[in-house]
Amino acid sequence: MSMTETGVRNGVDTNTLFATLDAVKEAPEAAAFQFRASNRWVSGTHSQGTMHGYFGVGEERVHEQAFIYDVDHPEVLVGSDTGPTPVEYLLHALAGCLTAGLANIAAARGVELTEVTSTVEGDIDLNGILGLDPEVRNGFQQIRVSFVVKGDAPAEKLRQLVEQSQARSAVFDVITNAVPVSIEVDAG
Amino acid sequence: MSMTETGVRNGVDTNTLFATLDAVKEAPEAAAFQFRASNRWVSGTHSQGTMHGYFGVGEERVHEQAFIYDVDHPEVLVGSDTGPTPVEYLLHALAGCLTAGLANIAAARGVELTEVTSTVEGDIDLNGILGLDPEVRNGFQQIRVSFVVKGDAPAEKLRQLVEQSQARSAVFDVITNAVPVSIEVDAG
Repeated sequence: MSMTETGVRNGVDTNTLFATLDAVKEAPEAAAFQFRASNRWVSGTHSQGTMHGYFGVGEERVHEQAFIYDVDHPEVLVGSDTGPTPVEYLLHALAGCLTAGLANIAAARGVELTEVTSTVEGDIDLNGILGLDPEVRNGFQQIRVSFVVKGDAPAEKLRQLVEQSQARSAVFDVITNAVPVSIEVDAG
Repeated sequence: MSMTETGVRNGVDTNTLFATLDAVKEAPEAAAFQFRASNRWVSGTHSQGTMHGYFGVGEERVHEQAFIYDVDHPEVLVGSDTGPTPVEYLLHALAGCLTAGLANIAAARGVELTEVTSTVEGDIDLNGILGLDPEVRNGFQQIRVSFVVKGDAPAEKLRQLVEQSQARSAVFDVITNAVPVSIEVDAG
């Protein structure tokens, strides 16, 4: 796992990372990305989502494979439990975003990580989405993230890496700062 | 696909749906849920998330299986493309939430759906997360959802069902209204 002459640390090719930063500095428009998910309803609360194509660095691209995942509610929420709930995918996204950022930032700052695990918890009162209490919001009331981070740096430095990841996380920003969403419907 | 004597419409058991609503009306504390995702870093931007246990209707529960999904960046973002990006999971969550709500609401209002597909697009300028432009936010600048909905109701009615789903969506609320997130780190 140690830094090699190729510049790979924590599985991050730091030469490529810094080259990417330099390339975007020279051509900021390369940083305009559009990500997408498509979805097809199956039955009841069960639907299937696909993540494949996206736009970035000036052109249409595709992942090496189409990622196809089911979404559902558990039986206690009148579903068939064929996949995680939508709100769990949201917590999963937050954990993945903070963790990827942490590995990149640690690599850039010369810290070798040996273990990163996390748990994300979200509290939700379903009186909101069930429409039973107008005082209760539909979404999570609060979200808590707990990280365990080990590596070849003092605890304080490891905590600073997580703070920097939070400061640069796309999903953390979306969840804590709100994004405008427009919905259009072709019905017929 | 037609309504049967068992009360199943759109794959939604409306008897169970209404019974669940009545049960929560009588015992609002049953609606206190906690959802969770855990995550383990693999290498670079690649991590693996697990969604299995949750709390609801007064007790600890588990999904019928542990749902385990990879998260990664594509190569153009210095990753190994072994899974969707975190921000794609977020769009996927939004589509799944609006679609599940639509099926439930249509069932409750006596509308038989025959097709629901959607695409969710999110625009993001990576000058934000790369730290190259302090004026650019880290997360999506805007998100657009496009639905195609078919069923045995007039177009205007189908559009109203989507509007009601939006008004009761947990993920839509989280993304458009912000949620406080706390992060703690056990480092060492």
